[in-house]
Amino acid sequence: MKTKRLDEVPRETVQMAGARGAVKQLVLGQVDGVPNFSMRVFTLEPGGFTPCHSHASEHLNYVISGQGELRDDDGKVHRLSSGDFAFVAPHETHQFCNAGDDAFVFICVVPKQYE
Amino acid sequence: MKTKRLDEVPRETVQMAGARGAVKQLVLGQVDGVPNFSMRVFTLEPGGFTPCHSHASEHLNYVISGQGELRDDDGKVHRLSSGDFAFVAPHETHQFCNAGDDAFVFICVVPKQYE
Repeated sequence: MKTKRLDEVPRETVQMAGARGAVKQLVLGQVDGVPNFSMRVFTLEPGGFTPCHSHASEHLNYVISGQGELRDDDGKVHRLSSGDFAFVAPHETHQFCNAGDDAFVFICVVPKQYE
Repeated sequence: MKTKRLDEVPRETVQMAGARGAVKQLVLGQVDGVPNFSMRVFTLEPGGFTPCHSHASEHLNYVISGQGELRDDDGKVHRLSSGDFAFVAPHETHQFCNAGDDAFVFICVVPKQYE
């Protein structure tokens, strides 16, 4: 059993091609002994985004704060704000973008293989 | 790809023995096509608690609002408040309790077998 606050977790700039102004924090994962999945938090600065990509792992998301968009490859835009949940299925193309003037902060849970 | 707000999700009173004043909402799970795990939200009214129990499935938690406690079977109490994360390992005895005057609301992610 373990508890953490976000400000205790190291911040890592997302270096993946196609990302801008994105920071990742691995809050709970394999190093904590979590056997099946990992809970990460992404912070996108205003104008920031994650890569537009797809992969075999699903995402379960919760928006902690800010205003954002989740875009699919059909051009559909899902607006997200504090308190919203999202699900990205395996192999769905997706991109998270900050659509506001403050940081857009969201939880992203994935299977441990995609930690 | 799917988004939801909490107020769109049906509320179910937790009937499990040892629970009091606890409501569960299955926000994202098998019915949504999530292949590996499920994201639920529990709301404990003031004085409310979940059962003191253990099981093979781990919990990953995020506190949305309120003040609470996560108790283990060694008598240790972990204080939790908005913005905190928690991990309960498989087979760890645990209980969530509201320790404040407002609702204690938290996310609980589990493997789909424990949905």
